[in-house]
Amino acid sequence: MVEGQEDVIRDGALGIEGDTISYLGPVPEESVLAQYDEVIDMSGKAILPGLINTHGHAAMSLLRGYADDLPLQTWLQEKIWPLEAKFTAKQVFDGTALSVLEMIKSGTTCFLDMYDHMDQVGKVVEESGIRARLCRGAIGLCSEAEQEAKLQETVQFAIDWNGQADGRITTMLAPHSPYTCSPSYIEKFVEKAAELNLPIHTHMSETRAEVEQNVRDYGLRPVEHLRRLGFFDLPALVAHAVHLTDEEIDILAEYNVKVAHNPGSNLKLGSGIAPIPKMLERGIRPGLATDGAASNNNLDMLEEIHLAAMIHKGANQDPIAVPALTALRMGTSYGAESLFLDQQIGTLETGKKADFITIDLSGPHMQPLHDIVSHLVYSASRGDVCDMYVDGRPIMRNREVLTLDEEKICHEAMKSFEAMTR
Amino acid sequence: MVEGQEDVIRDGALGIEGDTISYLGPVPEESVLAQYDEVIDMSGKAILPGLINTHGHAAMSLLRGYADDLPLQTWLQEKIWPLEAKFTAKQVFDGTALSVLEMIKSGTTCFLDMYDHMDQVGKVVEESGIRARLCRGAIGLCSEAEQEAKLQETVQFAIDWNGQADGRITTMLAPHSPYTCSPSYIEKFVEKAAELNLPIHTHMSETRAEVEQNVRDYGLRPVEHLRRLGFFDLPALVAHAVHLTDEEIDILAEYNVKVAHNPGSNLKLGSGIAPIPKMLERGIRPGLATDGAASNNNLDMLEEIHLAAMIHKGANQDPIAVPALTALRMGTSYGAESLFLDQQIGTLETGKKADFITIDLSGPHMQPLHDIVSHLVYSASRGDVCDMYVDGRPIMRNREVLTLDEEKICHEAMKSFEAMTR
Ligand SMILES: [Zn+2]
Ligand SMILES: [Zn+2]
Repeated sequence: MVEGQEDVIRDGALGIEGDTISYLGPVPEESVLAQYDEVIDMSGKAILPGLINTHGHAAMSLLRGYADDLPLQTWLQEKIWPLEAKFTAKQVFDGTALSVLEMIKSGTTCFLDMYDHMDQVGKVVEESGIRARLCRGAIGLCSEAEQEAKLQETVQFAIDWNGQADGRITTMLAPHSPYTCSPSYIEKFVEKAAELNLPIHTHMSETRAEVEQNVRDYGLRPVEHLRRLGFFDLPALVAHAVHLTDEEIDILAEYNVKVAHNPGSNLKLGSGIAPIPKMLERGIRPGLATDGAASNNNLDMLEEIHLAAMIHKGANQDPIAVPALTALRMGTSYGAESLFLDQQIGTLETGKKADFITIDLSGPHMQPLHDIVSHLVYSASRGDVCDMYVDGRPIMRNREVLTLDEEKICHEAMKSFEAMTR
Repeated sequence: MVEGQEDVIRDGALGIEGDTISYLGPVPEESVLAQYDEVIDMSGKAILPGLINTHGHAAMSLLRGYADDLPLQTWLQEKIWPLEAKFTAKQVFDGTALSVLEMIKSGTTCFLDMYDHMDQVGKVVEESGIRARLCRGAIGLCSEAEQEAKLQETVQFAIDWNGQADGRITTMLAPHSPYTCSPSYIEKFVEKAAELNLPIHTHMSETRAEVEQNVRDYGLRPVEHLRRLGFFDLPALVAHAVHLTDEEIDILAEYNVKVAHNPGSNLKLGSGIAPIPKMLERGIRPGLATDGAASNNNLDMLEEIHLAAMIHKGANQDPIAVPALTALRMGTSYGAESLFLDQQIGTLETGKKADFITIDLSGPHMQPLHDIVSHLVYSASRGDVCDMYVDGRPIMRNREVLTLDEEKICHEAMKSFEAMTR
């Protein structure tokens, strides 16, 4: 079974040559099958494009559950930031490895990461075999010299790592947000991104308070603020976009700005519920994302797909908001578009990279088995993810991760967390 | 590890004698352990009270995914009701068996069921070994003679089955809702429930339209309407309670009315988001529920716990609404209170029934492992549920269900669905 553009192929087959999908369709005859090096029986499973996580901070899984159910400023200032200040390269490596392991086990084949010590993130991605769009996130609340150093680091990382890991790693630039970066600092990133021909990413309009602050500081809401800084003249991705006026949605649509919708994180931090149905109406195709595990508290994209299909119906009292297939696309093809990787991934099509997962359809929660898209969106959970291939290479088989040492990673993560908190 | 009233016992043990919890505390010495017939190593797992599903229609899992993403009236009138009309005892048995299997595999040890052909539901409960509060749900949109027959059936079922299956089955009475039962019909249920000394259950204020209809028909909103009918003079449980004024919440609190909160179903059907934080403030302790799988689309109580902890934060833009421990209690102890079974179940305490589950803590999404309650609520999923005991009897061990034939149940459910739709 194969989920392609919008069709479900029942009793189908998928062929791979090298890192590429070479066949999609009914199961071929024995003589054709015999020409393949290996034939794997996937009966009882759905094959679908790997899930794509369009915004996160992988290293923060070390802080999972460290501080929940607190007001946002207390959470950030008293809990998260003091501990994050203790993050060394070691914490970033261990936290990212834990996250990538969790992502593999829940079906994510490609993720965006915005953090610090990004070389460590690059190393984990290389080792794990999955795909990533990486950017060093720069917070500008520091001296000019430090700002300049961060910008240099951002640019150097983006140059050094773009195309690494057999092309599985691509990069972009990322000033952290309009509330942590001055207009002139953001403009420098815009310039550099244009120069390097790379997309640009930032946090935008996550909380009401932040929007109000932007108006106080600059006389503009964040969308118009970023537009005037030239941010949207580039291929741009904004995370959150929770607090938007209709006019702001129009501007995002007009400039073809990509949106990373983080339903779990926005709910848990009490940020609000993004106006996704309105965005969809105006032709924006948001990707989905988990944000960091400190505010989610997991990296499960099936959960985000489920939330995306559920919360907008409830919040708008509209049972037809964000239908199942739309939510599934937000986690796959719209996600690929959001990362500017839709030429390579996001759907199962011949010629695209062989990035796919399989989902076990045998559980009682998947019966009666007739509408597979509905069951994937409303009923499947991470435990149903069986296999993962990226670039045609097996990454997980029957829930056994082939590229990473699970036990060691969990153990190191605990040690790394304890080293910071003791 | 044991989750009791509010404490987590690390490296603890739980002892059972017959159907009852006889010990809770640190692991006893070898000489004490030797006095037990069997000692089971649960290291690496959390032991917690079995989850309690306070409202549902188990047989409807046959309609899972049959019709999604439709306006409520179209969904009910064109899709669900025509198919439900084809339900025979066979469909109710097969659908309920599928649901009970799913509930076991996702950690639910006790559920409320409101449906038709309730003898079939009773049989499944008996066989499966889990616990249930059962009621025949009576829709009064029919002739007086039919109404009377349904009332008789309701009463007879409640009498015959109360205390069956070694006491695991208890019953209650259930007029379906104020919009499907006339005031005089509801009064008859109130009278009978008082006579039989049984609690009473109904759907209430699920949708805005239904509340408006109640005002048009009877000049009263549903809460005051039911209050005047004497409904709240009995031990009463209402499902949904989404559209409530502050005054209505006060009345529910004053009469100690129990609430079954169905976050998933309310979201998916576009009904809205119940004012749970306000209820909690006034001392109401809502239980959680899945409702039927046709509107959810699963029976996963960990998911409802997760939703309960997440959606009220987002909807109220308040990151401290419904903290993790409260959400966990809504799925356990508050659920037991909602079903009037809190003397027997809902917490792990010596003297209570040995109804408990274990959760595997080893997955990457559960690391670093320090705040177990946070991880159970925000990160665990149904695949982490390992073992289940009800009345001290093993129902599932390492995800293998011991009392039911999984394959047969899934197969029969598919056949039963096809028989209706062909
Ligand atoms: Zn973020
Ligand atoms: Zn119901």
